[in-house]
Amino acid sequence: MVHKFEQPQEHSPLPLFTASVSVMIQLERSNGVPLYRQIYERLRNAILGGELPEGTRLPTERALARELHVNRTTVMNAYNELASEGLIEGHVGRGTLVKRTYLARELDDEPFEQHMPSWLFSLSAEEELALGHDARLMSEITSLGDQQEVISLAAATPAEGLLPAELLREIVQDDLLTARQNALGYCPVEGLQSLRRGIAERMRKHGVPVDFQHILVLSGSTQGIGLVGRFLLHPGDEVVVEVPTYLGAIQTFRALGARVIGVPIDNEGMRLDLLEAILARRSPRLIYTLPTFQNPTGVIMSPARRRRLLTLARRYQVPILEDDPYGEIYFEGEAPQPLKALDTRGDVLYLSTYSKLLAPGLRVAWLAAPEPLIERLSLHKQIFDLNTTALGQWLVSEILQRQMLDPHLARVRQQYQRQRDVMFQAIQEHWPTGTRVTLPRGGFHLWCRLPGDMRARTLLREAAQEGVAFVLGEPFHIDGGGRQYIRLSYAVSDEVQIREGIRRIGLAMRRIQSRRSPRDEQEELHIERMPMV
Amino acid sequence: MVHKFEQPQEHSPLPLFTASVSVMIQLERSNGVPLYRQIYERLRNAILGGELPEGTRLPTERALARELHVNRTTVMNAYNELASEGLIEGHVGRGTLVKRTYLARELDDEPFEQHMPSWLFSLSAEEELALGHDARLMSEITSLGDQQEVISLAAATPAEGLLPAELLREIVQDDLLTARQNALGYCPVEGLQSLRRGIAERMRKHGVPVDFQHILVLSGSTQGIGLVGRFLLHPGDEVVVEVPTYLGAIQTFRALGARVIGVPIDNEGMRLDLLEAILARRSPRLIYTLPTFQNPTGVIMSPARRRRLLTLARRYQVPILEDDPYGEIYFEGEAPQPLKALDTRGDVLYLSTYSKLLAPGLRVAWLAAPEPLIERLSLHKQIFDLNTTALGQWLVSEILQRQMLDPHLARVRQQYQRQRDVMFQAIQEHWPTGTRVTLPRGGFHLWCRLPGDMRARTLLREAAQEGVAFVLGEPFHIDGGGRQYIRLSYAVSDEVQIREGIRRIGLAMRRIQSRRSPRDEQEELHIERMPMV
Repeated sequence: MVHKFEQPQEHSPLPLFTASVSVMIQLERSNGVPLYRQIYERLRNAILGGELPEGTRLPTERALARELHVNRTTVMNAYNELASEGLIEGHVGRGTLVKRTYLARELDDEPFEQHMPSWLFSLSAEEELALGHDARLMSEITSLGDQQEVISLAAATPAEGLLPAELLREIVQDDLLTARQNALGYCPVEGLQSLRRGIAERMRKHGVPVDFQHILVLSGSTQGIGLVGRFLLHPGDEVVVEVPTYLGAIQTFRALGARVIGVPIDNEGMRLDLLEAILARRSPRLIYTLPTFQNPTGVIMSPARRRRLLTLARRYQVPILEDDPYGEIYFEGEAPQPLKALDTRGDVLYLSTYSKLLAPGLRVAWLAAPEPLIERLSLHKQIFDLNTTALGQWLVSEILQRQMLDPHLARVRQQYQRQRDVMFQAIQEHWPTGTRVTLPRGGFHLWCRLPGDMRARTLLREAAQEGVAFVLGEPFHIDGGGRQYIRLSYAVSDEVQIREGIRRIGLAMRRIQSRRSPRDEQEELHIERMPMV
Repeated sequence: MVHKFEQPQEHSPLPLFTASVSVMIQLERSNGVPLYRQIYERLRNAILGGELPEGTRLPTERALARELHVNRTTVMNAYNELASEGLIEGHVGRGTLVKRTYLARELDDEPFEQHMPSWLFSLSAEEELALGHDARLMSEITSLGDQQEVISLAAATPAEGLLPAELLREIVQDDLLTARQNALGYCPVEGLQSLRRGIAERMRKHGVPVDFQHILVLSGSTQGIGLVGRFLLHPGDEVVVEVPTYLGAIQTFRALGARVIGVPIDNEGMRLDLLEAILARRSPRLIYTLPTFQNPTGVIMSPARRRRLLTLARRYQVPILEDDPYGEIYFEGEAPQPLKALDTRGDVLYLSTYSKLLAPGLRVAWLAAPEPLIERLSLHKQIFDLNTTALGQWLVSEILQRQMLDPHLARVRQQYQRQRDVMFQAIQEHWPTGTRVTLPRGGFHLWCRLPGDMRARTLLREAAQEGVAFVLGEPFHIDGGGRQYIRLSYAVSDEVQIREGIRRIGLAMRRIQSRRSPRDEQEELHIERMPMV
């Protein structure tokens, strides 16, 4: 019997064929090449050559073994080789399918493999695929900011002058010797007790009724996204994110094999009408949102949407991961409440960090969530990380206990608000009309749509020559959108650098425009003010 | 057509049936319960009830849909539900199989689920399975050590007095304000340049020809095991470890879905005759070894075995992960060279940490490996961790640059050697004959076989009543072995505590023996000295 080609069906989530694989394979039993190797090589060539396209279903080992008159282990060995190279994989209910092939081809061409041990050649291309591009981009962004001569409006990192070196030195001077074990030993996976209590107390002040057992201390928010993702998502599961959204979250979810579904954002936050349509039709396992001073747009989700989002999460039984690195960096009125403050059922997993408020180098962040989830995530954290730096935790805990955080944050807010205003003014002064800029009421970023049909990549290249860096809008999108958007951080550079950086970007913009017909000159600079909760 | 039961075949790696699934399912089209739900519930009951045992192969969605006269998406939805509960999973070449069921049953019985959001009920039991037991055990071990009144001979953590608080305070006092950005900002994913250079320089002194680009700074060795594992291993892949071996490595590999294969250790290290037999028959993707002052046995691999191990790795093209947390804690002669010093081809990935040498609370460890691997692992690290604490890195880097490490290590070695001797003497004095104890030439641990048929668990319970904690031998094994072994750490407690702790364990031992016939009294206390490289 020979498997027939089947047409893909409409409702099938992936193109699906069963190929007549066995007729492709002509085994030579006397040429000295092991049979499994012959099968492997024939299938590999067929996959790389496109003869077996992505999504093709292969026969089971048993079926192919029968047709080729070989032992089943022979086919198994061939399939294992192919799987280890990321060329095929098993799927629940769909059997063994051919995977994305282009990367395997790309890997074949990589030059460094010539002088490497052979086990490195055959590394699976799978995760590389999922993360390579975006992660490289992020590395480039980070390293651009490292160059002293470049003005960085790219990194979402605190201004050097606001890194609390004086506070930390004072704490170390006073108490490190007596706190030796707490500050320098191993500490519980869940975090230092004193810090968990301090964090819970502060969250209660912001309207979130939690106690220390709801807090898991993390080595940065990124770890939190990874832990929650690893726990809730299986490869192929869907996760809903805002579009645009924090690019680090997109790449972590993708690296876990999740399918990322985007819901556009407007100036009240995530478009819940569109979210509901997705929840009604599909079964995402997680909704990821930055409701307060969203990254990159600066948008704050309206109170009505917040309540509605919780209703939807409950109705469709999907947990929400609220990422809130910027909630305490507000420039007007009171501290905005987290979405989690409205959550009465434990549907919201709340993530925040001291990287923006104090110092990224401390690596202290936290998750607030129902206790059983904290317990389970602690086990995962232990497996891959053991625990978060005790030194960083102890320092943050001391800052909280000594009431040093609020005076520090008062300085932080004042300085960033001033820097935001300086950046905004400089844009009005130096940039051509037709640019659209959001004016956020908190956080680190301005989100800008470039004038006319100007592409962000073109501008980045041009601006690099002027010695100024920013972040492209594209990686914040999941669909190739955002090509005309850029994100500017006003946090990391001082006022003089900000003004100069914006001036240089303006120069670059005009140079691009001067090379083409000036058809957008009539447009006004457009400003969107974000509503405050 | 009805699928027939097939007998499992001899060469099949798992029991494998194709069940007559469709005849189990009687759909009722008018009772208001969606068809997918009926299929899901029937299969779920059959799996939990044992009617469909582990390893049963289910028909493809297409085949089952045909037989039940339903739409394929209906079956797909039912299968997805089952998969999300961890009851079935897809395998390359073998289709969709029923998974281990006992845990799903256990989860059903968990009491806390009554008052939790529903999305938490249906969490997959998969990783829980893989890691739950061991990780909980490790948590318990850690928390036991936290209790002030208990003498801990359990944790592999430095003595409090050796945590270098004075050195760190001096460095902070002198230089934190001027090093603000380096110490408190974000830093490159690969690690601070100055630290990478410092580490590479020190490794060269130990005979390993590396430079900074071969070094990836990590937030602890555990992260390194996870990163390397995630990169080299796919679920189902095999990894070879020594038996016994570091329990954290076992649980990390298992959490990644790897199959852990054990090779026994003797007093020259891993039994390479057995390793070779495995390499010849199977295709492990990684060999994990602690060649120097092995955890838990203290064994140091002989020079001949080291050379032979490298030959085997090259011949069978399997990379080696060398975990070396204790190499610098040696009590006799010169510093033992890492296995990596003999590696000319880049087959050895070398992992070490400052957790034992300086302080666990700094969270600074590193991997030394070929540059292309460092590059790729950096991408992975960025996705899940962004970077290692800059503060910890900066502090270690300063300690290296100020030449503070060697004087500190001289103190460390002297004190641990003394503590080892005190522990060993106390054992000779207080424990019944018939105990076997290794006397390591470095590291943190004594490895003890209990006298006669005494079980370690019995002793742990008895010893807990005396207020003393140690680690069971069992979790260091992958096969349920080690029930008569315990690991004692002489690092964390002081000499008085060590003597008292050993005395109390001796009391507990005699109490156990007095409850039974003293048939092993004749045996002598047996000491194995470990050979030095």
